[in-house]
Amino acid sequence: AGDIEAGKAKAALCNGCHGVNGISPNDLWPNLAGQKSGYLIKQLKAFRDNKRNDPMMAGIIKSLNDDDINNLAAYYSSLK
Amino acid sequence: AGDIEAGKAKAALCNGCHGVNGISPNDLWPNLAGQKSGYLIKQLKAFRDNKRNDPMMAGIIKSLNDDDINNLAAYYSSLK
Repeated sequence: AGDIEAGKAKAALCNGCHGVNGISPNDLWPNLAGQKSGYLIKQLKAFRDNKRNDPMMAGIIKSLNDDDINNLAAYYSSLK
Repeated sequence: AGDIEAGKAKAALCNGCHGVNGISPNDLWPNLAGQKSGYLIKQLKAFRDNKRNDPMMAGIIKSLNDDDINNLAAYYSSLK
């Protein structure tokens, strides 16, 4: 399973769009707080492997390895 | 904006995977409760227009029109 603290640190990349507490400031960007970790991992990998496309995510995802993805999923799913 | 009651009725199609209260019973299927309505609309239309692919969603989405999509988004975003 992912490391929540490491995920929280890595989430510095994500806070701008997804909100510091995982509640997004924009109606078009998803809330991540409390989302299913398996779903988050699947979507991050889909963005990484170009199975799902979003210009913003495409740029950010290239800097994430599998550990980062697991840690981010653990972190966001732990938020209420 | 969508009609929450009409969305709740249409959500009969969705409850099996996304949970009766929008909290999914499976780690791979996303929770929808409290998700951003604009994001939900964008994703439902992406599934409908084959810009996002999922075998399960592909089957269900064909039966939804724009009103259904707006109503479902209003309903799920209204859930806590």
